[in-house]
Amino acid sequence: MAWLRKPVRGILMDITGVLYESGERKAIEGSVDALKMLRTADVPFRFVTNETQKTKDQLGSALHRLGFDIYEKEIFMCAPAAKKFIHDLNYRPFLLVHPNVEAEFAECDQNQPNCVIVADAGSNFTYENMNRAFHVLVDNDDSVLITLGKGKYYKEHDKLTMDVGPFTAALEYAAERQAIVIGKPGEEFFRMALEDMKLRPDEVVMIGDDLVCDVGGAQSAGMRGVLVRTGKFRPTDENHASIKPDAIVHNLMEAIQRILSTGRPTKPVLPQ
Amino acid sequence: MAWLRKPVRGILMDITGVLYESGERKAIEGSVDALKMLRTADVPFRFVTNETQKTKDQLGSALHRLGFDIYEKEIFMCAPAAKKFIHDLNYRPFLLVHPNVEAEFAECDQNQPNCVIVADAGSNFTYENMNRAFHVLVDNDDSVLITLGKGKYYKEHDKLTMDVGPFTAALEYAAERQAIVIGKPGEEFFRMALEDMKLRPDEVVMIGDDLVCDVGGAQSAGMRGVLVRTGKFRPTDENHASIKPDAIVHNLMEAIQRILSTGRPTKPVLPQ
Repeated sequence: MAWLRKPVRGILMDITGVLYESGERKAIEGSVDALKMLRTADVPFRFVTNETQKTKDQLGSALHRLGFDIYEKEIFMCAPAAKKFIHDLNYRPFLLVHPNVEAEFAECDQNQPNCVIVADAGSNFTYENMNRAFHVLVDNDDSVLITLGKGKYYKEHDKLTMDVGPFTAALEYAAERQAIVIGKPGEEFFRMALEDMKLRPDEVVMIGDDLVCDVGGAQSAGMRGVLVRTGKFRPTDENHASIKPDAIVHNLMEAIQRILSTGRPTKPVLPQ
Repeated sequence: MAWLRKPVRGILMDITGVLYESGERKAIEGSVDALKMLRTADVPFRFVTNETQKTKDQLGSALHRLGFDIYEKEIFMCAPAAKKFIHDLNYRPFLLVHPNVEAEFAECDQNQPNCVIVADAGSNFTYENMNRAFHVLVDNDDSVLITLGKGKYYKEHDKLTMDVGPFTAALEYAAERQAIVIGKPGEEFFRMALEDMKLRPDEVVMIGDDLVCDVGGAQSAGMRGVLVRTGKFRPTDENHASIKPDAIVHNLMEAIQRILSTGRPTKPVLPQ
C-alpha cells in the first residue's frame, strides 16, 4: 500500500457521511470504535467539516448522542472562520445561509452589505434571496462573494441533495465574480487544522466521502486523501477524470485499521 | 465606421431591452420608427429572443399593443425550438420553466423524465425544484440538460433580475454536465433566423443589449454585433475583457440610421 509507505502522524476527517449518515440517527458501522482506537493509539486527529446547517454546539451534541467521544475544540467549521475573516476585513455581510447559522453572525453589522456569505441555505435558496445576493454583488464593484465550501451535493435521508456549491456557481456566473472559499476544498481551511496539530501536510491523511472537497482538496494542500464508500460516495467517484484518491476504503474503520496496522511510530521520534 | 465597410444585407434584433424595456409599458424611444424605416428600405430583419416567460402569441400581442408592426413568423423563440429538439430525439422533459411556457410542452411525454429543460422560471426556481431537476440528471447518466439561453440577468421594472444562465450554471456544477444551449448565444439558434432570411452570417448585423448573448454570440457565429445602451446595458459592458462590440450605439434607432445611411445596396445585385 503505497500511500502508507510514509508514516501517518495525524488524521483529518470529515464528519457527515464519515461518522454518520446525514438525516439518519445512527453512526456508520465501526466509526465510534474507529475513533476510540485512534485515541488509544494516541494518534492526533481533527475534524474538518463544511456543515453549515448546525452550530458547533448543535453538531457536538448530535455527535455525543450518537456515541462519539469528541471535543468541540477538535472540530473545525466554516462559519466561525468566515466570521473571523469578515471581521478582520470589515465586511458587512448579506447572509444566504440556513436559519440555524444566522445566529453565528448576529454580532456583525449587516447594514448596507458589501459581502455575500453563501452557505448550505436549503429552502432559503429562493429566487428572491438569490436576487438579493446578486444585487449586493452587482450594485457595488467592491463587494465580495464568500462561500462556505463548494460541495456539489450531500446525502440526506438516503437521497442526494444539492449543497452550497451550485448556488455559489450561480452567483459567480451572474455577477462575474469568483467566490472566496472558506471551507473545504480551500487550502486555508485545512491549514488551520494542521497548525492546530502542529503537523505538516505530508504527515497527515484526510479521510472523507466527498471526492472533490475532501480528497481533491486534501491532495492539493499536500496531504494524502482517502475516500470512503459511505455518505455521498457514488461508484462513478472511483473513475473520476482528474481526482485519484490515495486509497478507497469501505468505511472509516477500514481506513483507521489500515493506518494503525502499519505499526510505525505515529509521533516524530525526538532526539534524547 | 469600419463595421459598415461591408454591406449589411439583413438585420437580427433582440426584443426585450431593444424594442421596449421589460416591465414597462412603452416602447424605447425611436424603436417603432426604426422598424418602419427598415420596412420602407426593404431590408430584411428577424427577431431572436430568449424570452421564455411568454408564448409567441403573448409576445406578439404585447408588441402590437406597444405599436410595433411585427409578424409572428419574424420572431424566433427558444421554447418552440427546444420542443422540436426533444421531439426529434425522443426526450421526455422535466420542466423548470415559467408557468406561462409550460403549455408549449403540453404534448410532450413528461413521465420518467430523461432531460431537464431550464428556462427563465422566475420564482419557480425554488430549492425543491432545483433538486428535482438535479435528480433527473444525477439518477440517469444518459439524461441531458437543455437550457433556453444562458443570459446572466435582464432588466425588469428598472432593476436587474437573474436570468436562466446562473441556474443552468448551478445544475451544470452539481451534476457535472454541460448544458445544451437552445437560444442565444448558441450558434444554431442564430442560424435558424439567418436561413430564414437566406443570408450568410457575414452579411448580417445583430443588435442587442446583452453583451455576451447578443454581441458575443453573434460575433462567434460570424456576424457583426452591435450593442445598444438600453435595456440591461451597463457602462462596464464597454470595457469587457474579451467581448468587443463592432459598434456601441445609443439605441436601436441610432443603429438603424447608421446602417441605412451607408446607402449601399442591401440586397445582392443579381446578374442581368
